[in-house]
Amino acid sequence: MKLFKYLLVITSFVFTAYVAAEPLASWQEGTSKNAIMEFVKNTTTEGSKDFVAVADRIAVFDNDGTLWAEQPAYFQLFFALAQVKKLAPAHPEWKTTQPYADILQGKMPAHVTEKDLVELVMNTHTGITSDEFTQQVSTWMSSAKHPVTKMPFTDMVYQPMLELLTYLREHDYKTFIVSGGGVEFMRAWAPAVYGIPSEQIIGSRVASEYKVVDGVPQIVRLPKLDFNDDKAGKPIGIYQAIGKRPVIAVGNSDGDREMLEWTKAGNGARFSMLIHHTDEKREWAYDKGSKIGGLDKALVQAKKDDWTVVDMKSDWKVIYKK
Amino acid sequence: MKLFKYLLVITSFVFTAYVAAEPLASWQEGTSKNAIMEFVKNTTTEGSKDFVAVADRIAVFDNDGTLWAEQPAYFQLFFALAQVKKLAPAHPEWKTTQPYADILQGKMPAHVTEKDLVELVMNTHTGITSDEFTQQVSTWMSSAKHPVTKMPFTDMVYQPMLELLTYLREHDYKTFIVSGGGVEFMRAWAPAVYGIPSEQIIGSRVASEYKVVDGVPQIVRLPKLDFNDDKAGKPIGIYQAIGKRPVIAVGNSDGDREMLEWTKAGNGARFSMLIHHTDEKREWAYDKGSKIGGLDKALVQAKKDDWTVVDMKSDWKVIYKK
Repeated sequence: MKLFKYLLVITSFVFTAYVAAEPLASWQEGTSKNAIMEFVKNTTTEGSKDFVAVADRIAVFDNDGTLWAEQPAYFQLFFALAQVKKLAPAHPEWKTTQPYADILQGKMPAHVTEKDLVELVMNTHTGITSDEFTQQVSTWMSSAKHPVTKMPFTDMVYQPMLELLTYLREHDYKTFIVSGGGVEFMRAWAPAVYGIPSEQIIGSRVASEYKVVDGVPQIVRLPKLDFNDDKAGKPIGIYQAIGKRPVIAVGNSDGDREMLEWTKAGNGARFSMLIHHTDEKREWAYDKGSKIGGLDKALVQAKKDDWTVVDMKSDWKVIYKK
Repeated sequence: MKLFKYLLVITSFVFTAYVAAEPLASWQEGTSKNAIMEFVKNTTTEGSKDFVAVADRIAVFDNDGTLWAEQPAYFQLFFALAQVKKLAPAHPEWKTTQPYADILQGKMPAHVTEKDLVELVMNTHTGITSDEFTQQVSTWMSSAKHPVTKMPFTDMVYQPMLELLTYLREHDYKTFIVSGGGVEFMRAWAPAVYGIPSEQIIGSRVASEYKVVDGVPQIVRLPKLDFNDDKAGKPIGIYQAIGKRPVIAVGNSDGDREMLEWTKAGNGARFSMLIHHTDEKREWAYDKGSKIGGLDKALVQAKKDDWTVVDMKSDWKVIYKK
């Protein structure tokens, strides 16, 4: 028993040493990896002119297309579709209303605009208590599969990004999600998947109301968008929740442009990075003109403002979580 | 030199041991202190039936009247008054408008309703960038004195509560402020004073807007209340920012009633506590009917729902920060 414990300790030391010697192991040697490591070194080495105090080491990450995949549609949409089927008995009108009729017949709705998506989310994510909603997301997530890869959605998170999150936390950066997706949708699974606690997740949210029903105090989710954490909403969401400008911001689409712009414009050392989806074999390749995760203005601005651009195809040894 | 270092290390060990042996040193032995320590022991001892996982150890604190004093008016009001004087040259109409005319003549305005306060805050806290506002609060706080005690406002924080915050953090509780006060006002000084980071401060907020002015990306504060973090707003503020129900909630007025109610109603062990201002000699004595920090319904509910009620006069050895 004592020997076993001893070996365990040794193994753990060796493992720690190995991990410490191999940060960002799934990143190819090259410009992107170097830029990240150089920046982290400069901002966390005492005496460096770019040193950042621990309390200010805020790193924000978009979620869809940055930490996990987002094609052929935002994964939250698949949850909404599943909810439509579940809730259909209480909504006979859906049989003759689009996009609900298509969804109920198992067809992917032809055109889901942003407005449709918001309405879908309102109809499938509200009118229940906060606890019920979290339970519904957890239940769905535990068995749902991606329509193309047939993988659990939570396996479609990017291994190099998991390593980056860990690497930053090892250097006392506090990691946050800042996503256009629903904050409560993410909170049901993201803490376990990314190691980011519930209170470090910022997102879009519906209005909610506190009330005591039959003597039970609860929070009820209302069918009204309260905050849209996208585009210029991202800096605002960060200002509301954190109250300071991040030092590191990572995104992948024009929806992240303002967040990266605001971050990079701060005093002292700042790092903004775009994940460019260039790998049609291992994932998807898309940018300008894509309905999901369109990347156009932000890619132009990246050059002008000295943002790092990750080329998924050449910068990442593996794509999904190992 | 070596001997000195050695002594320093020894002293630091002794000091640490002393501090560890004396948690909540400014709390009198008695019901309140026992209730706190018993609860923390039960929720942080593995194997205890009330054990709470570290990720769920959320403790929320009201600020005004709970962590620092709030008489004869919320301290943020004194900042607003100072701002009125500073901004007066740009507002000639204030000379003939109440409550501004009184303020400019150095009189405490006779009746400041909640509506007046909101308008005052709008007129004195907005129309500038986020960075400018933080700078203005910091500058004011560094020299302002309380009109009665003549102490710096940040010295009027409660020593027993500082010890409670430390004690909870030592037991892996994450401490948050949840205040009706302005979140950005608090963020300018509270992290240094309470050891609570900016992102763990929840409060009322004005609307804000992201824009690029002369090529400089910035956040501008708008004269519109975006969220009122008081009464039923407190559970909502917590749900928005943290996404889970706290395990511990502490407040002092009817404005905290819903937060304490919601917290205590959660599954498993929960702890709600009221600070009752009973010490007219060392601080102020007030509850029911007080214009500031009125405590009526919450005190009644405390008995019914088994909340702990701290009697400042008998439970606290000292009041203010030592």
